[in-house]
Amino acid sequence: MAARRTPVVLDAMGGDHGPDRTVPGALAAHREHGVPVILVGRADEIHRRLRRHGASGEVEVWHADDAVPMTERGGRTAFRRASSLMVGCELAGRKGLPFVSAGPTGAVVAGAVRALGRREGVRRPALAVALPTVSGSTVLIDAGGTADPTAEMLAQFATLGAAYARDVLGVRDPSVGLLSIGAEPGKGNRLVRDAARLLPDLPVRFHGNVEGHDVLAGTVDVVVTDGFTGNVVLKNIEGCVRAVLGLAADAGIADTGPLEEVARLYAADTHGGAALLGLTGTVVVAHGSSSPAAIARACAVASDLAAGHAPVHVPRAAGRGR
Amino acid sequence: MAARRTPVVLDAMGGDHGPDRTVPGALAAHREHGVPVILVGRADEIHRRLRRHGASGEVEVWHADDAVPMTERGGRTAFRRASSLMVGCELAGRKGLPFVSAGPTGAVVAGAVRALGRREGVRRPALAVALPTVSGSTVLIDAGGTADPTAEMLAQFATLGAAYARDVLGVRDPSVGLLSIGAEPGKGNRLVRDAARLLPDLPVRFHGNVEGHDVLAGTVDVVVTDGFTGNVVLKNIEGCVRAVLGLAADAGIADTGPLEEVARLYAADTHGGAALLGLTGTVVVAHGSSSPAAIARACAVASDLAAGHAPVHVPRAAGRGR
Repeated sequence: MAARRTPVVLDAMGGDHGPDRTVPGALAAHREHGVPVILVGRADEIHRRLRRHGASGEVEVWHADDAVPMTERGGRTAFRRASSLMVGCELAGRKGLPFVSAGPTGAVVAGAVRALGRREGVRRPALAVALPTVSGSTVLIDAGGTADPTAEMLAQFATLGAAYARDVLGVRDPSVGLLSIGAEPGKGNRLVRDAARLLPDLPVRFHGNVEGHDVLAGTVDVVVTDGFTGNVVLKNIEGCVRAVLGLAADAGIADTGPLEEVARLYAADTHGGAALLGLTGTVVVAHGSSSPAAIARACAVASDLAAGHAPVHVPRAAGRGR
Repeated sequence: MAARRTPVVLDAMGGDHGPDRTVPGALAAHREHGVPVILVGRADEIHRRLRRHGASGEVEVWHADDAVPMTERGGRTAFRRASSLMVGCELAGRKGLPFVSAGPTGAVVAGAVRALGRREGVRRPALAVALPTVSGSTVLIDAGGTADPTAEMLAQFATLGAAYARDVLGVRDPSVGLLSIGAEPGKGNRLVRDAARLLPDLPVRFHGNVEGHDVLAGTVDVVVTDGFTGNVVLKNIEGCVRAVLGLAADAGIADTGPLEEVARLYAADTHGGAALLGLTGTVVVAHGSSSPAAIARACAVASDLAAGHAPVHVPRAAGRGR
């Protein structure tokens, strides 16, 4: 924590609660994780909250007039040049710093593509999340970047996901599974059947199809799916863990403490946001309902990703057995 | 249990383990649930196992030469006229009895459509599963019947799912949610956005979009999705509950007994198969890896569905608080 960490540009207006969450989040990122944050958004609103936290001058503020509403779907974002999202993205691009936003996923993806640009050869960026499994972590990609990808995009997500598992999680030769509705080749919807024909020719270790129950079983290191299914699965896991907790309490488990610890592993608050892969810069998309602690974690993850280290949350999840 | 229950036609060759599971499953259905079963498949293989269980003559056997392999995708099934699946389906149709198979979902759907026919106006049948939630049950439809539906089919699944919630679960005016990746209208993939425009005109109480975390939260009575996403979600729930159990054991929860009880609620073994809706007869599709107990439950559910009663598993799940 004492070492100097890579600063992060944070979209102060993003998320369901805007600066009410992002300002204390930025302070927590700095104070608890040692990550310096540049807050981008309406300067008066930000400064007012900094004063309230007795933290004037502690965090750098960069003004942006406009804010992208949470209902925005993405298409128009690139034209909101004065929004905290676009101003922040462009600032991050110029400075070579990571960018974090809890804004609407589609808008962040569109804005980041516009401001940062895709890495050469990449058709669409994809969101990657590292999920804790019984044996370690599994990368779920795409967790919501592209709702209607083509089979070629899906195949490319496999390459991006494998690179993430290798570079960020330190998996030497990651295995890649294609999420489908039957393990046998040929099972799936049209998109998956088409992608399954492309994957064996790619330079990734293709395991074949995996199913819904494999996602958290550690069957493969990387689970590839379209952004619609991936987002549903990610949120379904959060809901499922919550439901198990509720039913366990009903069933009379006296001490749900350790179970709540498990639930926290899967809560949006803990996994600290999804990395948007395939761009020339580092972008982390946090949950719209992120708490200040979740914003702080997303900043820490972005800082680590940009510095080329494994994000803090990954060893934590994998090393729960202490 | 003492009352005479509707007999069930069971595909003895279906499932990953064929008669090794279906024969003891049929015996358990009869002995433990009071449901008479007609086993359809290779008579010699069935009789050999009946003898081994000391149950010759206890269950009716109907011979069929052929068996549909578990890798079958569906298209050719209707031409396998001598398969246990087609012979069983046609027998069920002629006798007006419910049919149960643990065969490949696509094949069961194709065979059932061919043998029984769709109800008037129904474009495609859909699989419905009642999932236990903290407050009761939620119907997930389609859980794997049609992997690539059109928006019109998805809208029809809403009607089928609402009817199931009303007639089988006894929900007076069921609310219906469309599974998507954002609660706001207009969020989703192309299919969902198109379906969202059709749903408000239907005679169902349309709640709007729901997300992955809503499935087990009891947000709506019916969650509508395509068969690909629905099947992934269903299996993801099973895997998630298993992962939570594993992590809880690691985290040092001493007494996982009540938690295992919760896990059983979501195990494939317990929910006893999915009802294939939209046909002129009752069809229940059991998990390919079903245990004999799961086969027996699927038979009990099919018997109840055909008799117009709520399946045994539903009140059980809802009434877990005793």
